[in-house]
Amino acid sequence: MSSESPAPAAPFDLVVRRARIATASDVFMADIGIRGGRIAQLGHELPSGAREIDAAGRVVTPGGVDAHCHLDQPMAPPLRMADDFDTGTRAAACGGTTTVIPFAAQEKGQSLREAVFDYHRRAEGRAHIDYAFHLIVSDPTPQVLNEELPALIAEGYTSFKIYMTYDDMKLDDGQILDVLEIARRHGAMAMVHAENADCIEWLTKRLEAAGRTAPRFHAHARPMLVEREATHRAISLSQLVDVPILIVHVSGREAVEQIRWARGQGLRVLAETCPQYLFLTAEDLGVDDSYQGARCICSPPPRDKANQEVIWDGLNDGLFTVFSSDHAPFSYDGTEGKKPGGEEVPFRHIPNGLAGIETRMALLYSEGVLEGRITLEKFVELTATNPAKVYGLHPRKGAIAIGSDADLVIWDERECTVRNERLHHAVDHTPYEGMRLKAWPGLTLSRGEVVWDGQAFLGRTGRGRFLECGTPSLLPRSRA
Amino acid sequence: MSSESPAPAAPFDLVVRRARIATASDVFMADIGIRGGRIAQLGHELPSGAREIDAAGRVVTPGGVDAHCHLDQPMAPPLRMADDFDTGTRAAACGGTTTVIPFAAQEKGQSLREAVFDYHRRAEGRAHIDYAFHLIVSDPTPQVLNEELPALIAEGYTSFKIYMTYDDMKLDDGQILDVLEIARRHGAMAMVHAENADCIEWLTKRLEAAGRTAPRFHAHARPMLVEREATHRAISLSQLVDVPILIVHVSGREAVEQIRWARGQGLRVLAETCPQYLFLTAEDLGVDDSYQGARCICSPPPRDKANQEVIWDGLNDGLFTVFSSDHAPFSYDGTEGKKPGGEEVPFRHIPNGLAGIETRMALLYSEGVLEGRITLEKFVELTATNPAKVYGLHPRKGAIAIGSDADLVIWDERECTVRNERLHHAVDHTPYEGMRLKAWPGLTLSRGEVVWDGQAFLGRTGRGRFLECGTPSLLPRSRA
Amino acid sequence: MSSESPAPAAPFDLVVRRARIATASDVFMADIGIRGGRIAQLGHELPSGAREIDAAGRVVTPGGVDAHCHLDQPMAPPLRMADDFDTGTRAAACGGTTTVIPFAAQEKGQSLREAVFDYHRRAEGRAHIDYAFHLIVSDPTPQVLNEELPALIAEGYTSFKIYMTYDDMKLDDGQILDVLEIARRHGAMAMVHAENADCIEWLTKRLEAAGRTAPRFHAHARPMLVEREATHRAISLSQLVDVPILIVHVSGREAVEQIRWARGQGLRVLAETCPQYLFLTAEDLGVDDSYQGARCICSPPPRDKANQEVIWDGLNDGLFTVFSSDHAPFSYDGTEGKKPGGEEVPFRHIPNGLAGIETRMALLYSEGVLEGRITLEKFVELTATNPAKVYGLHPRKGAIAIGSDADLVIWDERECTVRNERLHHAVDHTPYEGMRLKAWPGLTLSRGEVVWDGQAFLGRTGRGRFLECGTPSLLPRSRA
Amino acid sequence: MSSESPAPAAPFDLVVRRARIATASDVFMADIGIRGGRIAQLGHELPSGAREIDAAGRVVTPGGVDAHCHLDQPMAPPLRMADDFDTGTRAAACGGTTTVIPFAAQEKGQSLREAVFDYHRRAEGRAHIDYAFHLIVSDPTPQVLNEELPALIAEGYTSFKIYMTYDDMKLDDGQILDVLEIARRHGAMAMVHAENADCIEWLTKRLEAAGRTAPRFHAHARPMLVEREATHRAISLSQLVDVPILIVHVSGREAVEQIRWARGQGLRVLAETCPQYLFLTAEDLGVDDSYQGARCICSPPPRDKANQEVIWDGLNDGLFTVFSSDHAPFSYDGTEGKKPGGEEVPFRHIPNGLAGIETRMALLYSEGVLEGRITLEKFVELTATNPAKVYGLHPRKGAIAIGSDADLVIWDERECTVRNERLHHAVDHTPYEGMRLKAWPGLTLSRGEVVWDGQAFLGRTGRGRFLECGTPSLLPRSRA
Repeated sequence: MSSESPAPAAPFDLVVRRARIATASDVFMADIGIRGGRIAQLGHELPSGAREIDAAGRVVTPGGVDAHCHLDQPMAPPLRMADDFDTGTRAAACGGTTTVIPFAAQEKGQSLREAVFDYHRRAEGRAHIDYAFHLIVSDPTPQVLNEELPALIAEGYTSFKIYMTYDDMKLDDGQILDVLEIARRHGAMAMVHAENADCIEWLTKRLEAAGRTAPRFHAHARPMLVEREATHRAISLSQLVDVPILIVHVSGREAVEQIRWARGQGLRVLAETCPQYLFLTAEDLGVDDSYQGARCICSPPPRDKANQEVIWDGLNDGLFTVFSSDHAPFSYDGTEGKKPGGEEVPFRHIPNGLAGIETRMALLYSEGVLEGRITLEKFVELTATNPAKVYGLHPRKGAIAIGSDADLVIWDERECTVRNERLHHAVDHTPYEGMRLKAWPGLTLSRGEVVWDGQAFLGRTGRGRFLECGTPSLLPRSRA
Repeated sequence: MSSESPAPAAPFDLVVRRARIATASDVFMADIGIRGGRIAQLGHELPSGAREIDAAGRVVTPGGVDAHCHLDQPMAPPLRMADDFDTGTRAAACGGTTTVIPFAAQEKGQSLREAVFDYHRRAEGRAHIDYAFHLIVSDPTPQVLNEELPALIAEGYTSFKIYMTYDDMKLDDGQILDVLEIARRHGAMAMVHAENADCIEWLTKRLEAAGRTAPRFHAHARPMLVEREATHRAISLSQLVDVPILIVHVSGREAVEQIRWARGQGLRVLAETCPQYLFLTAEDLGVDDSYQGARCICSPPPRDKANQEVIWDGLNDGLFTVFSSDHAPFSYDGTEGKKPGGEEVPFRHIPNGLAGIETRMALLYSEGVLEGRITLEKFVELTATNPAKVYGLHPRKGAIAIGSDADLVIWDERECTVRNERLHHAVDHTPYEGMRLKAWPGLTLSRGEVVWDGQAFLGRTGRGRFLECGTPSLLPRSRA
Repeated sequence: MSSESPAPAAPFDLVVRRARIATASDVFMADIGIRGGRIAQLGHELPSGAREIDAAGRVVTPGGVDAHCHLDQPMAPPLRMADDFDTGTRAAACGGTTTVIPFAAQEKGQSLREAVFDYHRRAEGRAHIDYAFHLIVSDPTPQVLNEELPALIAEGYTSFKIYMTYDDMKLDDGQILDVLEIARRHGAMAMVHAENADCIEWLTKRLEAAGRTAPRFHAHARPMLVEREATHRAISLSQLVDVPILIVHVSGREAVEQIRWARGQGLRVLAETCPQYLFLTAEDLGVDDSYQGARCICSPPPRDKANQEVIWDGLNDGLFTVFSSDHAPFSYDGTEGKKPGGEEVPFRHIPNGLAGIETRMALLYSEGVLEGRITLEKFVELTATNPAKVYGLHPRKGAIAIGSDADLVIWDERECTVRNERLHHAVDHTPYEGMRLKAWPGLTLSRGEVVWDGQAFLGRTGRGRFLECGTPSLLPRSRA
Repeated sequence: MSSESPAPAAPFDLVVRRARIATASDVFMADIGIRGGRIAQLGHELPSGAREIDAAGRVVTPGGVDAHCHLDQPMAPPLRMADDFDTGTRAAACGGTTTVIPFAAQEKGQSLREAVFDYHRRAEGRAHIDYAFHLIVSDPTPQVLNEELPALIAEGYTSFKIYMTYDDMKLDDGQILDVLEIARRHGAMAMVHAENADCIEWLTKRLEAAGRTAPRFHAHARPMLVEREATHRAISLSQLVDVPILIVHVSGREAVEQIRWARGQGLRVLAETCPQYLFLTAEDLGVDDSYQGARCICSPPPRDKANQEVIWDGLNDGLFTVFSSDHAPFSYDGTEGKKPGGEEVPFRHIPNGLAGIETRMALLYSEGVLEGRITLEKFVELTATNPAKVYGLHPRKGAIAIGSDADLVIWDERECTVRNERLHHAVDHTPYEGMRLKAWPGLTLSRGEVVWDGQAFLGRTGRGRFLECGTPSLLPRSRA
């Protein structure tokens, strides 16, 4: 588009004017010219676009990349996830997230390839925003290790999650080493859910034997040492294989100390945390035996105020690379709190996970950026740029840069109150009900299209596209 | 520049075409449109500029911000710095640095205001690139604390350095607390040279008594525990006052461990390191009593290979915020190694400091980025963006963003060998003589003007401007 | 004494029968045969003694060695210590302590030799139990370092204390290195009072400026970081000189962590703690501005309950080598709380120190041994054997072994309440007033003489003898 | 035995005269009067004994308690232990050890009671010195947990070992928790072999696949992180159950750091080390593919010189509670190095363990005490007193105290060279062949009988008695 060219009526499909653009490194005023769904130009007084939006000096960030969320994942009946790709990505978009990376989960005995195939069927034609897949490896047979995984990595499924707990998914240490070895050889990124399964089972049985089955005992069954131990072990296994890992959903001090220690040894250990470890405590699981606390059950469980401060420190000083929702959508009525027949559910049988895909960005923007706990650049880094880098989607996603997808959020800095009735997921509650925030996305663009205008969801079912992931781009090579 | 406007012959003063732009967060291809010395536009196929430079896909980074260098600082005769603002900023420009922040140093008994006034006289009309001033507070009288410092901070001198060693500059702990209290109250940034003066003096006297005065004994007089102790103390003093500090020129493991520990406690401690701790060892001070090693004397002294690895790890994982040269230009002949009369100089009297203003960027680019030890984004963060943020010059400096000064480096990735004869400082040697690098700045732009074209220095004496610094923008508020 | 010898009427001067003897390593039943003030025999059914005492199965431990107490130390008028060698050693004996090591303190400008000479004058003819002297070096002139100290060490004054705080006694880091070097060269034991003087002065001035002069602000002027910093520094200085040190009166977690860290590095750092850090908290200095809290002012100040637990852990696991009283006898009326004229004393001018020489043993026996927090052997180690070893008095003191002085305590395990009126010091209060204990010494023997029978003090003024100290026998040689 | 009594011809069975007695706390000169196999009296100039031995000022220590040794343990054929209770206890006695605690090992599927019964059959009538049994729990069925273990603990088998590696013995984390819970409930002492089985298996397979089966690869299959991980996990499991554990055969820095960390958290974690971690390195397993290194294979493997220093530091500063041999007697010819047919054995099939029961005491006395690395008291504590306390045998064993068994060693401080031909075990080599020592036991008494006179073994088969163990007496109660 040079000035010599025969003046096109509108060189841009869309121009966002007077944006206070925040990247993970810089904050500056500019117009954003968008063409073909991508950011084509940044500058002052850009030519006009077919459509124009005046940001009027408001902050514009990259659309969020929610690198840890669960949507329409097959569950053993009667358990079911409330959100599928339709409602889940709708909620994401309305909360400022423009890319999701849920999990194609292998069942034991199942081919990993088949799990991926099945998950594509669930996503296709339903997603409102773009999506990639992590894999969950629950049965690392020779076939999976030697054939399926290498092929899938080459095809753009470059990250997988390893569970150290949950009977249907956990791997033993030898299996973890096998899977990490594949990650190392093929340049994939391994995520680890670090809790010691045996300890949890041992504690759970004792609690049950004592009749302690109310939701709050979920936290008693998973004290922080259970997370700390598994974190240390996961670090050790990755050290043995000499491959980076990312510890997901770190909940507090003891796990953080293990990760700091590992970094101090030169080990390549990344970490993720989630809103529930900043805004909930174990008391949200109940202070008495009420079953209402079932709504806040997740693993690891939320800890206490002092641990929240440790997590804030870690967000600030680089300990955490990624801030995800770990959205795991279960309705209270019929699943978590009460069985379909109305019977209360002992904590062992309450599915673990919180709804959070729509609230993740606003919670951190409001309580982090606007309260002065983190900088605006750090917000962008944690919610968009780093997740895109860690999982090989950068700079297509997670950036406001020339050529990047025009996935943007314009922020409205005004008071609002979290109410489940205003959210767009299909879960019957939010753990943050009634919380007063200072900002909410005023507009979300996905590849240049407005999918949320601050009032209404404007997406189209099936407009979201599958993204092949590339190689993680955040980590140094091994020193070994 | 909209398409309706009466087509200007050349809307940009300069367009850098086909740049592989690296910011501290993103890497992407674009043209860079420059107008009035600032970056006006980023995009594909920008309109033509009065001048055009084809980057041809080469990496373009923000010009370096060297936040720790010494130029034309008054010394007790016969000591003198070899570089003044003319030669020093010339060398900086040829090495890809476009902003320097040297030190206006108060002598004991002198007014701080007078030191600043004097330093302006030394800079004005001589600098080739832009510059700001740090202050060195060596005599914190009530006048300095209560009047001069607050006024100077308000005028754009928002950072100052505190020495825990060197007889003519060191402060005692009580004085440090007084100065830190001013930093806290007025939002200034305190830098600390952390070495225990008494320990150094005690060791030096013993070495001298044993006739051990050759340059290599400099390292014996300053073992790492001397740095570690002072680092712990500086952290403690900043914790007491509840103010951030930045520990300058961290040399190795023991100091790094103190800083990691402080971060783990939630303390706001930043850190800087320098090329000498990545590329030199104590052996460069001499393995015998040769006086050649005088060339590599600096404080803290370089350590060993294992400590170099610790510094690399720290660059990578966020431990270090800033990578500076600590350029302290002393010629061997006449100052460091031999007195004007030719007599050899005992290590106590050898001025501490290395020449490094011109080699800083290329060393880290070559050995860090191209060797895969750090990402390109991390390189930009450490050499330009973070120093600009920490000292309140961002986003004017340290960024490739709309509105930022067009301070840019185009990198030539080709083998070259460091030779002092090819450098542009006035020092008679470089500690990196003969080192083979894989890249060197192929072009340096300062506010849109080419000051180095890869072959020749093209600056103009006096074109550099003084920069008023704003508030540091990198750190969270205190939790207290 | 073989059975062939012409039967002496009574082969022992005294036999303690049926003692449950506790040493620092073993607990066993035996009779103790005493002759010439020494332990001559241990066994079942020993021959009769001129005097016999039936322990009847009660625990018998070595008499306590209080290695940190202040008696009749010269003070700047109107300050004065309430206890001299008469009242101080009387109280010690009634509390189960049979050896004290108070301090011959050099005033600045004074010869150390003269200080020792003067202190002997104060002790001679007054002490009821045996005593040695530590030195306090406050003015390390060349004369002191090169002549007096070496001579005094050779004469049996083998330990000295270094202050990092208190204007009249503190040394700077260079002086500390000089003194430590003497300790290394002559095999003496250096004790360090570790608090950062400048920090305390800075905080005190600010508190005073805010009118905060009540006793409780003493704790505000000495937060734990002030102790932690000095502890780290003291460790560093001793590491530089490669000499062991003993950190006196450690108060809590942060200092403990520094010492643990040092040990983990192989450094030879010993530590002492005192009853006030197990049984008092900062609240004992007052929760409002009442001047009653003056009674509990000491330095470092008592911390909180969590820190008490850390100190208990340290007693248990070998972190602490010595448990002393730090008895510093100041009466509230006329010194601490009120000046002679009745005016209240701001915290800066309240002398630092608590009365504790008589309660030390019973507090630890009752709350440590009888509450199951430490073993009986550990009690003996901390209160008697280790102090005797560290200061070169073992096995003459601190042991129940053949040839050791017959300094013994027979314990009465019965409830009693601490009341100042029942104590034997000359201080007008005890910080433990009203505390209920489960045991108290039922009998104290000093060199075979009963000096306390559980009801009455039976000593004789002047029977205590001066002890020359030998070389510390507890520490390994340096690895260096 | 008073002088009035009708003079018995010889009131003592034996008197050891002029002994320089060392206990774990004190060193003093005395005669030792022995009657009925027990120490009856300590004192100067004791009455005569039926037999008299003149120690002539030589050091006398308690006989060693070797709390970790394997004798005649059933193995899968063709593996067999070279030493049974006859040769094993003979060797122990000649090396100054008077009590051994080998392991009654449960095979999977076997009743624990049966394993104990079988082990008694192996010991009875064969042992030359006294012995107790640890249990090895390899199959914690409900029967074992709820019936056998509680009953056996009550009968004097109060300690058991848990393996985290070795296929035939290892427990998973849930089983470990079950066993620890029994230890907590019944006051037993749990020992843990901490190495991660899965990691070892994974590494071993890879080494085998690469043809790396020579003995030196044993160390490659068990790097220190494998031990560190398991140590952290064992600590975590014991923390969960709130019960003390003892980590056996700690080999170096990384495991030591975990234990230090645990202690700093107030956790009750004890540790043991062995001579091989002070005197061997991984190079002793071979620097080439020679099979001679099979002689030094043990688990964890010996590390390097730097780790030896860490172990020495830990012996000194209280990190280690117990110093054992981990004697595991396998002959090279026919078992370790060559199969009966002469074929070389790949490292996976070489039984793990060294001969060391006879050399343990002399190695530590010579290189520890006489080289000034540890005090004489510490030697006694580590080799005799603490093992006796930890396993409930004190003060009967491990003490020179009235009423204790007269198990004593008189030390000859003279140069000698370790030669397998001079040792008394049935193993065909010693790992310390040719090592020059400065001392060796000159005489060993077991319950007052001379079993080794410095030249000849004087024991009688079957004179050794089984010892019921009591409750561990070394640890504080839990704070929980």
